[in-house]
Amino acid sequence: MTFHFTLEAEQGLARAGSFSTPHGTIQTPIFAPVGTQATVKAVPPRDLHEIGAQLVLANTYHLHLRPGDELIRELGGLHRFMGWDGPILTDSGGFQVFSLTDMRKMDADGVTFKAHLDGSLHRFTPELSIRIQHNLGADIIMAFDECPPPTDRDYVVGSLERTHRWLARSVEEHARSGDPNRQALFGIVQGGIFADLREQSARFVTGFDLPGYAIGGLAVGETKADMYTTLERTTPFLPKDRPRYLMGVGSPEDLVHAVARGVDIFDCVLPTRVARNGAALTRAGRINMRNQKYAADPRPVEEGCTCYTCTHFSRAYVRHLVKASEILGHYLLSVHNLHMLLTLVREMRAAILAGTFADYAADFLAHYEPVSAHRAAAAIPLPQA
Amino acid sequence: MTFHFTLEAEQGLARAGSFSTPHGTIQTPIFAPVGTQATVKAVPPRDLHEIGAQLVLANTYHLHLRPGDELIRELGGLHRFMGWDGPILTDSGGFQVFSLTDMRKMDADGVTFKAHLDGSLHRFTPELSIRIQHNLGADIIMAFDECPPPTDRDYVVGSLERTHRWLARSVEEHARSGDPNRQALFGIVQGGIFADLREQSARFVTGFDLPGYAIGGLAVGETKADMYTTLERTTPFLPKDRPRYLMGVGSPEDLVHAVARGVDIFDCVLPTRVARNGAALTRAGRINMRNQKYAADPRPVEEGCTCYTCTHFSRAYVRHLVKASEILGHYLLSVHNLHMLLTLVREMRAAILAGTFADYAADFLAHYEPVSAHRAAAAIPLPQA
Repeated sequence: MTFHFTLEAEQGLARAGSFSTPHGTIQTPIFAPVGTQATVKAVPPRDLHEIGAQLVLANTYHLHLRPGDELIRELGGLHRFMGWDGPILTDSGGFQVFSLTDMRKMDADGVTFKAHLDGSLHRFTPELSIRIQHNLGADIIMAFDECPPPTDRDYVVGSLERTHRWLARSVEEHARSGDPNRQALFGIVQGGIFADLREQSARFVTGFDLPGYAIGGLAVGETKADMYTTLERTTPFLPKDRPRYLMGVGSPEDLVHAVARGVDIFDCVLPTRVARNGAALTRAGRINMRNQKYAADPRPVEEGCTCYTCTHFSRAYVRHLVKASEILGHYLLSVHNLHMLLTLVREMRAAILAGTFADYAADFLAHYEPVSAHRAAAAIPLPQA
Repeated sequence: MTFHFTLEAEQGLARAGSFSTPHGTIQTPIFAPVGTQATVKAVPPRDLHEIGAQLVLANTYHLHLRPGDELIRELGGLHRFMGWDGPILTDSGGFQVFSLTDMRKMDADGVTFKAHLDGSLHRFTPELSIRIQHNLGADIIMAFDECPPPTDRDYVVGSLERTHRWLARSVEEHARSGDPNRQALFGIVQGGIFADLREQSARFVTGFDLPGYAIGGLAVGETKADMYTTLERTTPFLPKDRPRYLMGVGSPEDLVHAVARGVDIFDCVLPTRVARNGAALTRAGRINMRNQKYAADPRPVEEGCTCYTCTHFSRAYVRHLVKASEILGHYLLSVHNLHMLLTLVREMRAAILAGTFADYAADFLAHYEPVSAHRAAAAIPLPQA
């Protein structure tokens, strides 16, 4: 079987594993940099390899609109197109489409929407999303689902039914026109912050024998406490022998909390987006490189960091680039931030394999100060191992 | 002597040589990428090495204003600050200051100006320019001069007198407070497009025993024919045993014509600026990567090119990045364009050493189509070897 997950070690809910794909084996837990438009913003593929990236995400919605998934297929698929020979994951496009709140209309069959680029009218259905993802050719593709407002129970109940019907149609379309040895279709568990709905969804979704399962609809406005609780009430209903992908997460503290609750795969624009805003992720927390206090600071962005940025440049230089709006500042901070998250997941994996994850996670969180809005959440305890 | 130019071969006026500096030996002819704000826009230093860059230019005006030359000195100088361990050249700041036409006032002693960043009032004199360049610590520093309108003879005559007085003051200040074994001061020949004024200036400037001489005030609005003619009437008055630097040039055809007329060193923002506008420099001419005809083109930007961009990505992908305003597009085209110019100067050097430069230059120009505004100039003959 092309796609195979090996569970290598467990500590409490935390897991270390490996997932084989046609473009290489992913060692989990892993964080996937986001390459929305078939490029991780500002970072060339060879740097991604050097940083330790093993999986890159690309967005079906964006690539369908521009340059077009048919074109990418004609050019040999997304790997060749973007020059990344490692594993790729594409989302279904659903999240972006549902984000176009004023420009889309949903029905039982799919969603009609106006493109953000030019207002042109488009329609996504589960079948079309899967066929677009076939054209793109990522190793991991996602079922078409709806990401509902997480705390609106009435809405979530109706949405869940739709998501489940769309999952069945996604699975059917992949079986009909896809190649399961080339692309692994993951199902997505929804259910907002409601434990009973998450359990119900997990049971339904895992009723399909799929190579992996995702947890969607989190980190979209609910509290961190709700997210962490929801996670620990969802993963026990997922099979141990399949990878679990938490969509759109995220921050260093979220990665630690989610790995502690049994998640294997993550993606998020955060490291590259905050980089372009001039912020660096460090083990002490997020720092704003525009700060005057770094103006003459000869130290690297993060002391002890082995990334290209930290081994070659000072905080003073990075601050200068950010203040001067130089592209190189985006690059250097993106490289550092991705390296920081990929080092974190690599260390978590090593700790799980060594049986020291509980200590590692507690120690990391004790030293990491989340951004002010999330300081209260820092007190949330890790689950007992 | 730290700074020493060895003339290795001549063919007609064209020369191959090498210039030793504290940060390595520069093999000429050479093109210097421009790093205005202590960064070659979008290109990390390790890529510059890979591309074959041997000399990088930085701008005194910009760095004096931000982050400040004192700060750069405190942080160990420009090489350490920008992470470039090869030779660096700084201009005098004069060109930028004189470009602030509505915001500066010149007197016999220097120029008072309002900074483009915040309108704050500053003043440059020859002495201050040199001291700022001492703080920056580049290997090659430039005398403070005025770049006059090249065809206004009356203005050029008066300006030349000022430039010559300022040269004497620049030389004196460097002797007083500089270290000639650490930084080489180049004098600048001015004189607009007037052969007699250029000869007069060359005789005056070379009256100072300096490690190198520059030709300034060209490529600033005069015709290409005037520029080429002026060059061939200037270089014969420069000593053969010193490098000659043509400031702010340029385009592939200008590099060939100027090397054929005895120039050794070039700098220009062109390759990185046109890259950020979505254009690629190729041996056939400049191409606009936004063109619809590249939308599905699987070929590299330039067939046969060995740069990172051309060995990993298609025209279709580069076009997609440009159309989608992705930073990676700036990077990939900057890398290609710099590689193209550095390959051109390396090939010209090899041809001069092999005695085949006349054929090489004629062949290059026969295949290179300049942008439409300069097609007429393509007919300008090379000087006889």
